[in-house]
Order: sequence, then C-alpha cells, then structure tokens
Amino acid sequence: MTYREDIEGIDASILMHPRVWEASGHVENFTDPMIDCKNCKSRFRLDTLGDAIADKKKEKIIETLHEKFLDDESKKQIFADTLNAREILAEKFEHLLEIKEIAFDVLTEVNCPNCGTKGQFTEPRSFNLMFKTFLGPVENNENVVYLRPETAQGIYVNFLNVQGASRQKLPFGIAQIGKAFRNEINTKNFLFRTREFEQMEMQYFVKPADDKKFFDEWKAKRLEWFKEMGLTPDKLRYHDHPQDKLAHYAKEATDIEYEFPFGWGEIEGIHNRTDFDLKRHQEYSGKSQMYFDDETKEKFIPYIIETSAGASRSFMAFLVDAYSEEEVKGETRVVMRFNPKLAPIKAAIFPLVNKDGMPEIARKIESNLRPFLKVFYDDKGAVGRRYRRQDEAGTPFCITVDTQTLQDQTVTVRHRDSMEQERVVIDNLLLFMINKLK
Amino acid sequence: MTYREDIEGIDASILMHPRVWEASGHVENFTDPMIDCKNCKSRFRLDTLGDAIADKKKEKIIETLHEKFLDDESKKQIFADTLNAREILAEKFEHLLEIKEIAFDVLTEVNCPNCGTKGQFTEPRSFNLMFKTFLGPVENNENVVYLRPETAQGIYVNFLNVQGASRQKLPFGIAQIGKAFRNEINTKNFLFRTREFEQMEMQYFVKPADDKKFFDEWKAKRLEWFKEMGLTPDKLRYHDHPQDKLAHYAKEATDIEYEFPFGWGEIEGIHNRTDFDLKRHQEYSGKSQMYFDDETKEKFIPYIIETSAGASRSFMAFLVDAYSEEEVKGETRVVMRFNPKLAPIKAAIFPLVNKDGMPEIARKIESNLRPFLKVFYDDKGAVGRRYRRQDEAGTPFCITVDTQTLQDQTVTVRHRDSMEQERVVIDNLLLFMINKLK
Repeated sequence: MTYREDIEGIDASILMHPRVWEASGHVENFTDPMIDCKNCKSRFRLDTLGDAIADKKKEKIIETLHEKFLDDESKKQIFADTLNAREILAEKFEHLLEIKEIAFDVLTEVNCPNCGTKGQFTEPRSFNLMFKTFLGPVENNENVVYLRPETAQGIYVNFLNVQGASRQKLPFGIAQIGKAFRNEINTKNFLFRTREFEQMEMQYFVKPADDKKFFDEWKAKRLEWFKEMGLTPDKLRYHDHPQDKLAHYAKEATDIEYEFPFGWGEIEGIHNRTDFDLKRHQEYSGKSQMYFDDETKEKFIPYIIETSAGASRSFMAFLVDAYSEEEVKGETRVVMRFNPKLAPIKAAIFPLVNKDGMPEIARKIESNLRPFLKVFYDDKGAVGRRYRRQDEAGTPFCITVDTQTLQDQTVTVRHRDSMEQERVVIDNLLLFMINKLK
Repeated sequence: MTYREDIEGIDASILMHPRVWEASGHVENFTDPMIDCKNCKSRFRLDTLGDAIADKKKEKIIETLHEKFLDDESKKQIFADTLNAREILAEKFEHLLEIKEIAFDVLTEVNCPNCGTKGQFTEPRSFNLMFKTFLGPVENNENVVYLRPETAQGIYVNFLNVQGASRQKLPFGIAQIGKAFRNEINTKNFLFRTREFEQMEMQYFVKPADDKKFFDEWKAKRLEWFKEMGLTPDKLRYHDHPQDKLAHYAKEATDIEYEFPFGWGEIEGIHNRTDFDLKRHQEYSGKSQMYFDDETKEKFIPYIIETSAGASRSFMAFLVDAYSEEEVKGETRVVMRFNPKLAPIKAAIFPLVNKDGMPEIARKIESNLRPFLKVFYDDKGAVGRRYRRQDEAGTPFCITVDTQTLQDQTVTVRHRDSMEQERVVIDNLLLFMINKLK
C-alpha cells in the first residue's frame, strides 16, 4: 500500500521506442570497453584487466600519460585513475580514444588472465550493455529495439500522462517496480549483479529551486526506510559521489550501501538528475515536456530527484541480514528475523493435537485469515518442531489452538523473535494481525 | 491474497537457457509462415493473405490438393482449411512444405494487398515469434537467448524446486503473473494483441488418472471467477477445441472467450497438457522430473492442467465491461462498475465543507485507512461533483465527513452503484471496508 498521496504508480513497457534510449544517452554512453585475447579468443572488460596489472604497470601508464599529455592536466588525472576506475571508462567515454591508446601501449606487457599469453590483445572496442532485439521479422538496424536497462525512462516518457490523469501538482512522484536488463559481461555475488533484475524506482518531480531540499529529504528518508524494514543500522552507509565523478545526468548523487558478506555494495542510488532527462526527451521526441504551474502561471521543465533501489539486491540484503542462529535450550535455533511486512508467511496456524475439535477451530481461523494474509496451516509433528520450521521461514506469528481454546475461545499467539506467547480472542485475531503488519 | 493453500507463487526469469525453448517446442513450432512481395518488399503472414483471396481461390487450392494428394484424405482436409486457419499453419507445421507448395501455386493469382502487383511473392518462410537477443558481447548463434513467449515454461522447469521447498503433495499448483513477449507481425485491437503483454498462469500438477476430473473442475472454476469479478455472464462463453485441432502438447483444451466490442476473443485457455512438458524437460535437461508419491511409493511424471489467462486481455475485458452510462436527474452519469476488488481506488474521503474541523477529521480517516487501502482525498468542488469524479474512476465507496460527524462520530458511506448512503461509526470504517473488499 502506498503511504503517500503524492506518489502515483505506473507499469511501463520493457520494450520502448529505440529513440527513448538515444534521448536518455544509453545508446551512446551505456558501454564498456572490451578487449579480446588474440590467442585464446577470451573477451575481457578492459577495467577487469586492470586488476591483473601490478602497480608498476599503472606507474608506467601515468608516466606515458605525462609524456603524451603534458599540456593537459585534467586528462592526466583521468587517465591516472583509468586502471582501477570502471566508472571513468563508462562515464567519460569521450576520452576512450586516448584511453585505448594508452591501455593498448601497456597491454603489450600484460598476460592474458585466461591463457597467459603476453600482450596479444585486440584494440579495445566499446560494447553496449543494453540487450537488443528486433521488432518484426526483419533483423536489420531499422528494427532494433532494446530491453530497458532501467525503469526510470519509462517513467519520464509517461510523466505528463500520469500528471494529467492524476491531477498531481509539483512536487509529486511516480514510482515503479519492474524488471530491467543489462548485458553484463561478468555477473557475480549471487543476486548482486545479474543480467535480469528487479528495480524499484521513484522519480520525484520538483521545482528547480527545490532540488537540494528534496535531494536531502529523500536521501534521509530512504536510509531510514531500510532501517525500518529491519536492516542492521551498522551495515548501512552513504557513499556520496564526488563532484568530478558524477554521471553525465547528475548534479548530486549518493549511494546507500549495505555490508554484504562479500563487502559493501550499493542497494540504492539517490540522484539529482536535474532537468536533463525531460529536456532530452523533449528534444528527441519533439513533444513539450513542460509543466504548467497553476499558481505562478509559469511553464518549465521540472527537476527530478530519483530514488533508484535494486529490488533484487535489497531482497538479498534483507535475506542475509535476517539470518540468525541462537542457542535455545542447548539447541541451535535458526531464525529469519524478517520485518513482519517482508515475511513471506505472516502467520502459521496449529492445532495442538489432531483431536477434540482443535483441527476444526484451527481450520476456521485459517480460512478466516487467508483472504487477508498469507497463512500456513501445519498439524504435523510436535508443536516445538512446528515453531522451528516457521522460525526458519521467518513467520512472525504462530497461532496455536489448545485445550484452553475450547473453554474461552482464545488462542496462543507466539512471537518469533522473543518466543513469548500471549493469548488473543479468536474474534480479534484479524485486527490484531493487521495492526501488527501495517 | 491467495485463497488456496495448495497453490504456490513463483517469479521465474524472462531470459532462460535456450534449451528450455527447444524442450518446450517453441524453437521448432512457434512460427508463422511469411511471404514478401517482390515488388514493394512488404511482408505478410501467409494466412492474412488468405483473407484477400476469394472463395474461388480456395476452391482452386482444394482442387489442386485433390490432384496432388488423392492418396491421403487427412491431408486433404488439413489443406482445405489452410487459408482461413492460422492455427493449422502453426500447429501442423510438419505440413508446411506441402502447404508452401500449394499456397505458392495459388499466390501467382493473388494481388499484393499493399502495391497491387499480381503474384510477385517470395516462397513462404517460417518466422519464429520469439524475440531473440544475445547473451554477452558476441552476437552469434551460440549466444542466442529468447524472451519468454509464455510464463508456463518457467513454472515447469522450477516444478521440483517449488515442490521440495513447499512440501506440497499432488494435486497442487504453481501460479505466476508476469510479462511475456511475442514478436507478432500484426498487433491489433488495443490491448488484445500486443508484443509485450502480461500473463497470469496457474499450472496444476495432478496424478495422470485425475486429469479429466481436474480439467473439468478448473474449466468451471475459471469461468466462475470471471463472473465473480464482475464480467457480464452473457458476454462469457467456452470455446472447446475439437480433438483434431489441438496443439501438439494438449489432450483437451478450452478457451474462455469474452465478447469485446470488436467481437469474441480468448481471455483464458484451460489445457490438459498431459506429461508432455515435464517429459520434454527431463529429456532435454537430463534431469529427472519425476514426482515421488509418499503413499503409493511410486515415481512418475505428473500431468499438468493449465489455466493460462491473459492479464492484459482480462484487464481490457474488465475495463470495457465496467463502463456504463445512466441518466440521473436529467444528467448522464458515467460509472465504472468495477468489482471493488479490482477498483484502482477503494475509497474517497471528503470533508463536506473546508471548515468546522471537517477537513481535520477527514484527513485523520484518510491517514488511518491509507496503510491498508488505496484511498483518495478530495476537498475540491461540490460533493456531487466529487461523487461523479469517483464514479468515473470506479471508486466503490465515498466517505463524507459532515455536520452530523461532529456530533456522533459517524460518517456517510455512499455506494457507487446504488448511490445509497449509510452511516458508519468512524472507528468501524477499517473493518467495514476490509470486509467489503475481501
């Protein structure tokens, strides 16, 4: 459920007109430089080879740079960072030609990480990370369409449709959860980098003068959200992007990072995208993307504050963060300590024994709750074992029908984390549960 | 919420291993025969040209068939149907060679629907309707992957994973809502045939001997569901597939059709897919897809009863069916008569006037309901006009805070369809709403 009335939902297309991705800059900029080993034909992202190159190689590059570009201090710095900063290769792509030259010079002294052959690499070529396919039966350049590499652009091109239909006024947001696709060369760390993944993005449209205020507000709110959803505060941090490393569309950018078992990784990015995107869509589509302000009678292109979370990555963070083991009466109890909102099963219902009318009452409770909540009925094995199974699934509440139920129409509600139990009147269960889960 | 404990949910990948689509038969069979006009280069699906060919052409084909295949009665019948039955072209693809020959003979007498040139067509070629793309930077046949043309196969290849994790026993189902993609040559009828669309499928795994029982059960249940969700019963019907026109995987098949403004169209298919799919996946993957029956100690491949609904098509059916106009006090009232479960906004909250503390109470009601329901606050214009706006959006309940509220803490709840009003105590609103929406 949405808790805010200033944010609308949308479900945009995965396949959009290819001009959308020209306007967004993805056709031109969403690329990695790649090289092939001429001997074994393996293909590598240029920057991953950087990992294999020792500091002396890096020094040599800087030295080469000094010789070649003594006249340009800014380039020197960019090139100095090249070998360990993929971001620069991707974002400052206009420098690729120079980078190619330098990297190529040095690559003659690098061994192929696959076959070990020294310096037999092709020249770096740019490789676009968007998956492409063809609309219709003819496979030519005219019919190329791309799988969206982010859900954001589907929101931007629908901005005026949503605003008109919803009668929203600035500031307001449009949110979307959906699949995105990136043709990554190297997938890694389980769900962290996959070619198909789920994003949950919210684009907040504001008056240009309000950009700083809302950037700061959303930056704070989003970190707070991950904490409220249960992530360990010590495992969350901001990574503010320095001004000289911002993406081409950004005026200010922050990552929210989580400390995974394999290290810190971004789970959400908050960006001040300015009017870059809407301006570009206006230019490439020839359609005005202007917002008309009723009060001031002004027309202008709003600024956009983006909160772009990885749903798949967040899911993994919630999963690894929730896992815990503890000693209970000499045995190890495994508990998934999900926030109840995120728990896949909200309540389990047990009859204490399979007789005396208990199963009938338990089944009645189950069928009364089922239209509202994901519940699970279990009558197999000792109650203690049933509790443990639900602990492992992260079920926050276990409801047990016992002998006392037969007398006073109350049941035991056992809390997953504290393992404490309380008695609740059957007729109050739905409201009890709903309030715990809101 | 799921109302059944024997059905699990899943969210499978859109991009799966290409062998999945070889196993499913899509690489081989999911094709349309296409021809090009040599003069204007337009491309047509062979069967769409059938529409342009008069009965005499059809007669000629049958005549030709008689001459060529006097020895094979079954082929005669198949070919006789060719020009108006796309299904045959797709499903009986093993006959394409013969069909090509015949169609080609006749095509010399057909004019191009685009440029009018007579009989200048290429030979029919088969065109696969799956969108293809390339995994990784090298665009060759080895790296082809497909966008899923149906969600079903993602369920089949995960069948044993889900069964093991959920501890379900036969009969049980796995359900999924998700995008599917088909590279249709001709899209049409708004949402009815699009290249990217949403499916909602449920695959029910049963003992082979129970297939007929569950096919009939789901056939009945699914029609009932569309009625419960509000579709006009007279606009719903079954279309049972005759035995000689079944798809290659089906033993029995029924469509549920809805009468759209443009005519009857399928919104769901119920199929007895037998053990075809799991057997094929077992064969192509080399992994057993056998289910072990605890009670009988038998191992076997279950049969599958599929309920495959188009979410996009159903959405359109719900939309056109809900639209109504009626005369109220000399004015036309437009109402979207959605089942409350399907209404995008569940309740609107109005203060009668913007004073006397009414807005504060209305805002409080709104914020109390918002965590549970999609609600809309409106304080602009006369209440009558606000009602009409919600009628057009299909909002089932309008809650108004008025002067009586100030005295007795009750509000008016106005029902969209009957326009009747009742008074409800504010504290009871949540439970009132939740019970109306379950």
